[in-house]
Amino acid sequence: MTTQPVDFRSDNTASVAPSIMEAIVAANRGTAPSYGNDETTRAVDRRLSDLFETEVRVFPVATGTAANAIALSAMTRPWGGIYCHETAHIQTSECGAFEAQSGGAKLQLLPGAQYRITADRLAKAIADAGVGQPHKPQPAGVSVTQATDLGTVYRLDELAAIGEVARANRLKMHMDGARFANALDTLGCTPAEMTWKIGVDVLSFGATKNGCMSCDAIVAFDPGIAHELVFRLRRAGHVWSKMRFASAQLLAYVEDGLYLQLAARANGLARRLSEGLAALPGVKLHVPVEANEVFVEMPDAVITRLEAERFLFARRGPKLIRLVCRHDGTEAEVDQMLAATRRLLPLAANVTALP
Amino acid sequence: MTTQPVDFRSDNTASVAPSIMEAIVAANRGTAPSYGNDETTRAVDRRLSDLFETEVRVFPVATGTAANAIALSAMTRPWGGIYCHETAHIQTSECGAFEAQSGGAKLQLLPGAQYRITADRLAKAIADAGVGQPHKPQPAGVSVTQATDLGTVYRLDELAAIGEVARANRLKMHMDGARFANALDTLGCTPAEMTWKIGVDVLSFGATKNGCMSCDAIVAFDPGIAHELVFRLRRAGHVWSKMRFASAQLLAYVEDGLYLQLAARANGLARRLSEGLAALPGVKLHVPVEANEVFVEMPDAVITRLEAERFLFARRGPKLIRLVCRHDGTEAEVDQMLAATRRLLPLAANVTALP
Amino acid sequence: MTTQPVDFRSDNTASVAPSIMEAIVAANRGTAPSYGNDETTRAVDRRLSDLFETEVRVFPVATGTAANAIALSAMTRPWGGIYCHETAHIQTSECGAFEAQSGGAKLQLLPGAQYRITADRLAKAIADAGVGQPHKPQPAGVSVTQATDLGTVYRLDELAAIGEVARANRLKMHMDGARFANALDTLGCTPAEMTWKIGVDVLSFGATKNGCMSCDAIVAFDPGIAHELVFRLRRAGHVWSKMRFASAQLLAYVEDGLYLQLAARANGLARRLSEGLAALPGVKLHVPVEANEVFVEMPDAVITRLEAERFLFARRGPKLIRLVCRHDGTEAEVDQMLAATRRLLPLAANVTALP
Amino acid sequence: MTTQPVDFRSDNTASVAPSIMEAIVAANRGTAPSYGNDETTRAVDRRLSDLFETEVRVFPVATGTAANAIALSAMTRPWGGIYCHETAHIQTSECGAFEAQSGGAKLQLLPGAQYRITADRLAKAIADAGVGQPHKPQPAGVSVTQATDLGTVYRLDELAAIGEVARANRLKMHMDGARFANALDTLGCTPAEMTWKIGVDVLSFGATKNGCMSCDAIVAFDPGIAHELVFRLRRAGHVWSKMRFASAQLLAYVEDGLYLQLAARANGLARRLSEGLAALPGVKLHVPVEANEVFVEMPDAVITRLEAERFLFARRGPKLIRLVCRHDGTEAEVDQMLAATRRLLPLAANVTALP
Repeated sequence: MTTQPVDFRSDNTASVAPSIMEAIVAANRGTAPSYGNDETTRAVDRRLSDLFETEVRVFPVATGTAANAIALSAMTRPWGGIYCHETAHIQTSECGAFEAQSGGAKLQLLPGAQYRITADRLAKAIADAGVGQPHKPQPAGVSVTQATDLGTVYRLDELAAIGEVARANRLKMHMDGARFANALDTLGCTPAEMTWKIGVDVLSFGATKNGCMSCDAIVAFDPGIAHELVFRLRRAGHVWSKMRFASAQLLAYVEDGLYLQLAARANGLARRLSEGLAALPGVKLHVPVEANEVFVEMPDAVITRLEAERFLFARRGPKLIRLVCRHDGTEAEVDQMLAATRRLLPLAANVTALP
Repeated sequence: MTTQPVDFRSDNTASVAPSIMEAIVAANRGTAPSYGNDETTRAVDRRLSDLFETEVRVFPVATGTAANAIALSAMTRPWGGIYCHETAHIQTSECGAFEAQSGGAKLQLLPGAQYRITADRLAKAIADAGVGQPHKPQPAGVSVTQATDLGTVYRLDELAAIGEVARANRLKMHMDGARFANALDTLGCTPAEMTWKIGVDVLSFGATKNGCMSCDAIVAFDPGIAHELVFRLRRAGHVWSKMRFASAQLLAYVEDGLYLQLAARANGLARRLSEGLAALPGVKLHVPVEANEVFVEMPDAVITRLEAERFLFARRGPKLIRLVCRHDGTEAEVDQMLAATRRLLPLAANVTALP
Repeated sequence: MTTQPVDFRSDNTASVAPSIMEAIVAANRGTAPSYGNDETTRAVDRRLSDLFETEVRVFPVATGTAANAIALSAMTRPWGGIYCHETAHIQTSECGAFEAQSGGAKLQLLPGAQYRITADRLAKAIADAGVGQPHKPQPAGVSVTQATDLGTVYRLDELAAIGEVARANRLKMHMDGARFANALDTLGCTPAEMTWKIGVDVLSFGATKNGCMSCDAIVAFDPGIAHELVFRLRRAGHVWSKMRFASAQLLAYVEDGLYLQLAARANGLARRLSEGLAALPGVKLHVPVEANEVFVEMPDAVITRLEAERFLFARRGPKLIRLVCRHDGTEAEVDQMLAATRRLLPLAANVTALP
Repeated sequence: MTTQPVDFRSDNTASVAPSIMEAIVAANRGTAPSYGNDETTRAVDRRLSDLFETEVRVFPVATGTAANAIALSAMTRPWGGIYCHETAHIQTSECGAFEAQSGGAKLQLLPGAQYRITADRLAKAIADAGVGQPHKPQPAGVSVTQATDLGTVYRLDELAAIGEVARANRLKMHMDGARFANALDTLGCTPAEMTWKIGVDVLSFGATKNGCMSCDAIVAFDPGIAHELVFRLRRAGHVWSKMRFASAQLLAYVEDGLYLQLAARANGLARRLSEGLAALPGVKLHVPVEANEVFVEMPDAVITRLEAERFLFARRGPKLIRLVCRHDGTEAEVDQMLAATRRLLPLAANVTALP
């Protein structure tokens, strides 16, 4: 039985990566112009333009919800519709932030296997949307979550097909990259290949879940969106006066590929965990594990026992739990979880067998 | 002539106070529940409830603009009006953040000597506002800036009179305390005396300008406002997943009265600077210096020469400049500025005398 | 073959009932206070309070969309959710008017047989909604459409069950009564029985489709909602300066039960039409006809031929059409339609049989 | 002493002009496509394009507030500023409708003699606005009220100068023409000369005050604005299903110059009234009478006596009243008012003389 809790609750419970913390401390020297007019912030634009192999504008923001809601609102007028998967974080878990920031635009929900939308569904939805009809929200954009909230990852050709439909219908394309680095690690492609090369106009570049302290970023490939963001962010209170401390985090985050190393570690732990669990009788992966999240079904009695033994995770259904692996997780924790599950499964079977 | 720039641009250019940075580093231990459910964040509520001598709810946010716009929007329905001074930051410098967050409520501007509104003006404005008339925004709140954007400070009796008018007319009262600690130092009163005891329902508790890194806070005295803020902040993307790092800053900020010490230092430098300047012929204080900002008029030629010598400050008119003293400023810098001004004044007089 | 078009497009294409037009003309006498302070408008409040057997506030508005969007926005804060059927007009056909007027609140869609939601589904949705969780829109209201957009009608016990769930969870209840009179005719109950007695807090009282010229009305049973509407309507430009001409329409509309007579006529025509069509081989009612709309499936070739013969109606699918009967429709038109369909069905069968 | 009230309260209290009422009745024939797809509505576009000597799009709306708020919101993004006179109706009397419909954009108030803004003030305000600065709402448009709410009228060269400043700074220009016809009568120019020829992009074309029943119109000269209006109006519930009855009003309103005849009559009455009053000792015109409104100062005792004798008008200050002349007013009423004032003035003088 464990005595210290083993934590698979979320990547949001993680610590700050050491070199990122060092960069914050190092940025604390002398004075610097405020509101992003400092040298560190300018360096972020240059550094991420290098990383993405094209000129980008980077806007550090406090949260992923801010990144999503404000990036999306810069893609649409208030009477527009943004297509997304019916399980997208922007629909399920942000309290209507997009609707608030966009002045009441609409999310248009699409179904899709393994929590991914498809180009075909998108094309059909646009065809049926009533373009030009005053009674209907006008198709304005599409948002893909990469990796998805269920831990699956779009293939590049799937993204490219969606991007093509978007472009053909003059929709803008957004990527919710709360777990951008995790997806990148899985696909083994470049940031450019997973974004503007397949049609992404604006990216929520996740950083907090993967080792930063208090910032994510909007990366704008489209200059028109970038222009709007300047004012939209100011009105949402998302322009830090001491921006240098956010920018320092972002610089350290991508320095020498740190962001990829951190994601690879989390992904590797998830792989180890999911493979171990899948091998157990009575345990079933809910969805393929392609990033750092493991959704797994097991007997309720086992779940309850694991909780009692201070394993921390989220329930997502009567027999469904979510386990998230972090950049600062350990193989020992994974193995503890595996051992406990293995140990508890037979007991649970007995419990179930009782009259 | 200076070689290093001497920086009086803003308190936003300041560094993070050492003990606050240490607290951030110390908070980086293990995992913690996200979105403010952590122990550090709970401690902030308790600690500030002690500080304010009443039960408060504290909401750390990324910026002072977020604090102002979202706190104010929780005081009014979209058809409401918020009274404030015509030079208030919320009117002049936040790109309509309040209007955006409130769904189009209105700021109702009041004049007032030395950048302070008065209870009498407020009462008269409410009386003339058309309460109950559908054609008119309905009086909903009042916002005072303490210290004001021009560096003046409301006396407690002035605030109390405003609070009384607000209460008598069922308006909520907000204090923009971007420089709360500076005002507190000036008045020598307690936080309670300057807030809820004179009627403040919700406070933008400034921290970034005075030594924090990346957060300010909304302090809600009114439970109804606190309830709204939970959802309003989420929709504006102002609920950090790793909240503990913001909360750690706030705890350190008030620990052993640090916030007051930092403010006292900035105020002291401003006093030294303003007294020195006021003693020079041809130099005139634009407004009494009651906090850490010095607005001063001097010949344009002197201003230009000071800029050329790399003194950094903001122009606010043909002969008007703003000098802001920081928690991490030095007497040496102040004295450099005084010496340079003293030296340049006669030269400028000559320049002006030329045909 | 017809020569004059026979029009089943919509009840929005109808004329104004003669006595309503007479009332408009009669109202054009002398001067009258503006913005609803006139005697005619006051009489509407009294007259509809009698009709509904309780004190109501009536707000004449230009359109049903205005009535729906603004009534609903008075039931919720911007972070609220309103439950409705996934085919509700507010979701499918009002271009996001609710989202616009509410500042970005969300419609929460429920499935339901025959286009009606059920109390059970509603209760479950509320239970799963995450009440109190900042990440989730908070359940605020429910909207039922009576008659539905597909021409079905809720039974009183179904409405009462929904109302009970609403009340138990402190949700407000809205009825989109664009075809209120048609439903009333079908149920044979009183206006009170179909509204506040089963829990309705605010009603979009349809009038334009059923014989008025240019106005519908919001009928508020809840004084809090009524208070908000005063300001919300003004800000949406829905307070006529010459209100008396709208009020005159509403008075004439309910005078001596005219609204029920008009609805009974439209319903009767729909019954005649649907029974005649249902008796034809190869024709199938898509959904029971319970008001004045007939959704019917027939071979595409017949539909095309009917269109060519200038029968006017709306296509709603490859083999699905909508036929709407109006207060000013005639049995002759219905019979023309029946005769033509009967005549064309065999021809179409032959066409289909061709290689 | 009068027995019937003599009504100078507002032009909103007026009746509908007989030929307009006849047109409404005549439009009530057969069925017609809904939501503005009918022939009458198409004819309005053509007829007003003729009238304005350029291609326009016309959008009938229920009220002048709807016309103003929605037209203006189509000129700006939410972070924009619209310049207008500090006494403009959009600022003082529409309950923040513009702020609501625009998503929180700002009205930027300008002073100006006789309630008119000037090109110089506008140019200076734009120069000082902080174009490109994220902290400041971005100049987006200017709104002029013609005639002003105080009954003064801009000269064409004044308007042209404002239009030039707008164009030079890429601002859109709106005219609030609630009393458009009255101004046109005063200037004796063409509708084209007073609108697009001097730079107006979109016009609130007042009709209700001047003889229509329940509609005003937005006339869009700019196709981009017209495109937005299609959706903005739908979302605000301002697209009538039975549009033909609004369109019939507008057609009749401009038929054979009726709108000008009605305005000429109201203006003539105002001239007669103001000249008569100005000739009386102790009575003073507050502002030149250039349309159909008379603002006049007289002893308070006279005002009170006039009220007691059932003369109806609006008080606007301790000694200031507003008298509005209507298209259906009479010379007899004007003469009654003059006679009564003449009779009461000496009595009032005595009253005042009493201790």
